[in-house]
Amino acid sequence: MPRKIILDCDPGHDDAIAMLLAHGSSEIDLLAVTTVAGNQTLAKVTRNALGVAAVAGMRGVTIAAGCDRPFVRPFIGAAQIHGESGLGGVELPDPAGLPEAGIGLDPRHGVDVIIETVMAHEVGEITLVPIGPLTNIAMAARKEPRIVERVREVVLMGGGVHKGNRTPTAEFNILADPESAHVVFDAGWPVTMVGLDLTHQALATEEVCARIGEIGGPVAELVLAGVSSYGAAYRETGRFDHPPLHDPCAVAYVVDRAVMTTRRAPVSVELTGTHTLGMTVADLRDEAPADCRTQVALELDVDRFWDLVVEALAALGDGDGQVGEAGR
Amino acid sequence: MPRKIILDCDPGHDDAIAMLLAHGSSEIDLLAVTTVAGNQTLAKVTRNALGVAAVAGMRGVTIAAGCDRPFVRPFIGAAQIHGESGLGGVELPDPAGLPEAGIGLDPRHGVDVIIETVMAHEVGEITLVPIGPLTNIAMAARKEPRIVERVREVVLMGGGVHKGNRTPTAEFNILADPESAHVVFDAGWPVTMVGLDLTHQALATEEVCARIGEIGGPVAELVLAGVSSYGAAYRETGRFDHPPLHDPCAVAYVVDRAVMTTRRAPVSVELTGTHTLGMTVADLRDEAPADCRTQVALELDVDRFWDLVVEALAALGDGDGQVGEAGR
Amino acid sequence: MPRKIILDCDPGHDDAIAMLLAHGSSEIDLLAVTTVAGNQTLAKVTRNALGVAAVAGMRGVTIAAGCDRPFVRPFIGAAQIHGESGLGGVELPDPAGLPEAGIGLDPRHGVDVIIETVMAHEVGEITLVPIGPLTNIAMAARKEPRIVERVREVVLMGGGVHKGNRTPTAEFNILADPESAHVVFDAGWPVTMVGLDLTHQALATEEVCARIGEIGGPVAELVLAGVSSYGAAYRETGRFDHPPLHDPCAVAYVVDRAVMTTRRAPVSVELTGTHTLGMTVADLRDEAPADCRTQVALELDVDRFWDLVVEALAALGDGDGQVGEAGR
Amino acid sequence: MPRKIILDCDPGHDDAIAMLLAHGSSEIDLLAVTTVAGNQTLAKVTRNALGVAAVAGMRGVTIAAGCDRPFVRPFIGAAQIHGESGLGGVELPDPAGLPEAGIGLDPRHGVDVIIETVMAHEVGEITLVPIGPLTNIAMAARKEPRIVERVREVVLMGGGVHKGNRTPTAEFNILADPESAHVVFDAGWPVTMVGLDLTHQALATEEVCARIGEIGGPVAELVLAGVSSYGAAYRETGRFDHPPLHDPCAVAYVVDRAVMTTRRAPVSVELTGTHTLGMTVADLRDEAPADCRTQVALELDVDRFWDLVVEALAALGDGDGQVGEAGR
Repeated sequence: MPRKIILDCDPGHDDAIAMLLAHGSSEIDLLAVTTVAGNQTLAKVTRNALGVAAVAGMRGVTIAAGCDRPFVRPFIGAAQIHGESGLGGVELPDPAGLPEAGIGLDPRHGVDVIIETVMAHEVGEITLVPIGPLTNIAMAARKEPRIVERVREVVLMGGGVHKGNRTPTAEFNILADPESAHVVFDAGWPVTMVGLDLTHQALATEEVCARIGEIGGPVAELVLAGVSSYGAAYRETGRFDHPPLHDPCAVAYVVDRAVMTTRRAPVSVELTGTHTLGMTVADLRDEAPADCRTQVALELDVDRFWDLVVEALAALGDGDGQVGEAGR
Repeated sequence: MPRKIILDCDPGHDDAIAMLLAHGSSEIDLLAVTTVAGNQTLAKVTRNALGVAAVAGMRGVTIAAGCDRPFVRPFIGAAQIHGESGLGGVELPDPAGLPEAGIGLDPRHGVDVIIETVMAHEVGEITLVPIGPLTNIAMAARKEPRIVERVREVVLMGGGVHKGNRTPTAEFNILADPESAHVVFDAGWPVTMVGLDLTHQALATEEVCARIGEIGGPVAELVLAGVSSYGAAYRETGRFDHPPLHDPCAVAYVVDRAVMTTRRAPVSVELTGTHTLGMTVADLRDEAPADCRTQVALELDVDRFWDLVVEALAALGDGDGQVGEAGR
Repeated sequence: MPRKIILDCDPGHDDAIAMLLAHGSSEIDLLAVTTVAGNQTLAKVTRNALGVAAVAGMRGVTIAAGCDRPFVRPFIGAAQIHGESGLGGVELPDPAGLPEAGIGLDPRHGVDVIIETVMAHEVGEITLVPIGPLTNIAMAARKEPRIVERVREVVLMGGGVHKGNRTPTAEFNILADPESAHVVFDAGWPVTMVGLDLTHQALATEEVCARIGEIGGPVAELVLAGVSSYGAAYRETGRFDHPPLHDPCAVAYVVDRAVMTTRRAPVSVELTGTHTLGMTVADLRDEAPADCRTQVALELDVDRFWDLVVEALAALGDGDGQVGEAGR
Repeated sequence: MPRKIILDCDPGHDDAIAMLLAHGSSEIDLLAVTTVAGNQTLAKVTRNALGVAAVAGMRGVTIAAGCDRPFVRPFIGAAQIHGESGLGGVELPDPAGLPEAGIGLDPRHGVDVIIETVMAHEVGEITLVPIGPLTNIAMAARKEPRIVERVREVVLMGGGVHKGNRTPTAEFNILADPESAHVVFDAGWPVTMVGLDLTHQALATEEVCARIGEIGGPVAELVLAGVSSYGAAYRETGRFDHPPLHDPCAVAYVVDRAVMTTRRAPVSVELTGTHTLGMTVADLRDEAPADCRTQVALELDVDRFWDLVVEALAALGDGDGQVGEAGR
């Protein structure tokens, strides 16, 4: 039976691909997409989520806007990687035409969508997959603490054991709202941290792009246009020849546990460090204590990962909302 | 025209009197009481709010429960001052009988009550009067940022320029949730900080208690029973012969601007100090900059304050919900 | 019997007057003047110390240069108050002529002068009077921990209970090297903190200047020239009509205990606060614990203070090193 | 020409072997051993340094005691690894007999020995090799800032890029006195950080012990007794089957650059983190800026390292102070 998930995101190039992977995979039942200020402003990432949903024909998936800034700190954004629109290089359909395509914004707040969806399902039924700053998830856990015991698990993209990107020690999603990250890691539900240690193995090489290109159709075209712009931005940093597709890794772990290795370890978010603000401090010195419910992703099965992505994109077919054979 | 307020509180002895002052004063239209974990757990302070409302006959006032813990940090509580029930020494009516008395809990979350009340009124119509930890207010401002421009002002009890109580530099309400306090002071709406510098002047002396005793009836009895227990707790600290009634001071400022002097000054909440966590740092060295929208309370007109309190309690009469002449 | 002191300073206008008060007072035996980077660079404040010593004829007083920067943090300086030379507006004698006047720099490091002087005297004989950043004193205590038990007491100018100057909460001397301040307050020797609460009462009014003017001679002239420049700098801040003479207050307390009231209280130096770095946090909520060895100065006997200063300046007479009757 | 070094240490098992490597290597001219509180109290580590010097016949090497505690923070110690004596399991000669053996403590303070040695040599002649907490080195740099330009380089054991031992992120030597570590990394002289990333490759396996056993004589016996006790302590942590010999790695790098790979990178010491205090934050995201003078050690040539150690121990022969052929 497919896993019911809520994808909390800030599209963002890799977020867009994560949405497509979630929608296209037969192992996932994507109930809702909630947006949060992160890679770009809330208005822009919400517009991007709707546009991607339209291209992919995501009818029946609730889409709702959440928080427009981190709880404690100012908004920082990542325009240098994702562009001014948040999906630089990608042409999205005119918002005016979305309602006709059956794509619209739920009037509820994203935080309430998360709460109401979790409370409306059985204990252990809903998996949260946050791939942006953790503001919405933390707000939901504080507004309705009962969701913590009801959620099956949280699989998030963020952090890194030995790596940062925005600073030497901090990854963007965690640095953007470290207090909310603390709330999520500290809540007591099972958390899998898919961080930079893992996601820097998911590089969109020419070979990968060629496989996606073979699929054809508007969805694959959107992905390739995005990866092209995103890859160029990463190359300009001088750190990567091919861009790491962070966010789909978290979704991939929900699709298939075997796509990566993980290790149980206590994780603390640094909130006061001068050089380490937003660092996810994992204690790997000893075996994790018995009551530890957090784990960190370590090694990606790179081939299996790209197979999952390509298969899901292929299943989305022409993006008419009629998910093809593979996606059922 | 009376000022429409939402009282966000954690009763608590002085919170209870603040509720009564707000309800009894002809200058205030108390729209809602929202509760927050603070002096005691959310369950206890909510029960206390309902009980006080029942004794005072607060029919027509929305009462809703808010957040059950601070955003970032663990719950601390103040049982040593307010007792295990949060209203030590006070006998409250059986909760089972409240519905019959027309007193009940609104099913909505306190944060949503704040948001919906503000959004349903005109810009500048609603005053927020938070007298507990600022979790609900911060959550509301983050969930619906438009309330910041719509709220007339925030008059809060908390902090201190030159004083702390829970630590040498921090007052309980701010220390209990400093991150939320930061959000409130930093939001941009007008904030009046009624802190310990002011509230330590509002001492419930024997003379004050005698005046309240003369009023008679169940409301005055509740107040005196509370002050007796609360005063004993303060005497045990060795710091006060008569207990300071912190929370009613904030309400009094809404009733009558002339009850205290204030000074405009930038206020920052310390979030990282080892010895100063939760301190409200007010810069009194220079005149405040033109765009400064925070002010701190300095000197209380003690007589006027007690007149306001006694008058409001007298107006509540027998607590049958029929506010007397003075309270209209 | 006069009290043997080491004056650790960073002249600086008020430091200069503190030197003169220490040298001119019959109650003080000024053994050494050690300098530290603070109001200006080490080179400048040392030159100033030598120049003041020359004007005042301080033959027989060891003068030694100490640390040229704080232990952890960069040098900040206070040129805006003390001028580019550190004694703006004051004409000092040509350094080339100092040896002839019997004034010269001890070749030893200031830290070693402190250590060796304390170790060469009996337990309880030496009082340390630091009136600049506490780098030298902390270095001495760490290099030779035995001085802590040998020193009679530390009477320092720095900090403030309810006041800052360089920031809303921090006084310059402490903010300039908070880690060293922590070492000094935490060491276990008796510490009297003469902070801004006290020193803002020592204002050099026209009346005070007139009294000093009546003394006449080069020493009084140096003082008046300094106060004139220093007063102008303070007036420009918009905070003071007459400049506070901070540093002489600490010396005055050694001369005469009755010149100020004090209160025993634990004092902690804030090392990690965002808004409170360098704050001296005194806990005045309760009576100090029995083992508390720190006290804070509260109220100045203003008349007595100025009498002490004027008397000492008068005793210095023509600054020929022949201290007059009053100064013996 | 052998490199003139000052070894600043806190023996400690691995410190003892580092002393022996430095003394026995023909590439090093060990001028002085200065001690600092770290693995054990200053009294104990100084006694251990003298004892090891006696066994190895280190006549002519200045030995001096330095600081007995960190600058800002309390002493922590590492008795659980190094034993109550600091050299658990090792029998040292009776201190009473040391003078006769030509081994004695220099009366000067360790900080002054460092300063005077550096100032007495040419610019670029002296290498500092600190393998304990950095208190002495920081004190020396602050007391006599001119040493910073005169020292050839600092090769220190401490820190870790991706690893901590005392906490998940901090290595003991840095955590023990992070403020002093900050001073050393920030001073501007060339610093090579030989941290846990490197030293966890220097494991004293059975094979290594067998090679040392073959040398025979009191020096080798001392080493084996120490490694046996030290190895047992490490095994008890559950983290290591064979103990890492941290400190000799720093000395080995002075002996032979080729024994490890290094990478230039800015390094900051975290002073305020809740979970990261004392972490050495190296920025490996980009190529180091041109003016970067810090580098971190990455990979050890394990065989070459043990060859160096065995060769030096062999050169010490019977520990009679007559360094054998290989040690010249």
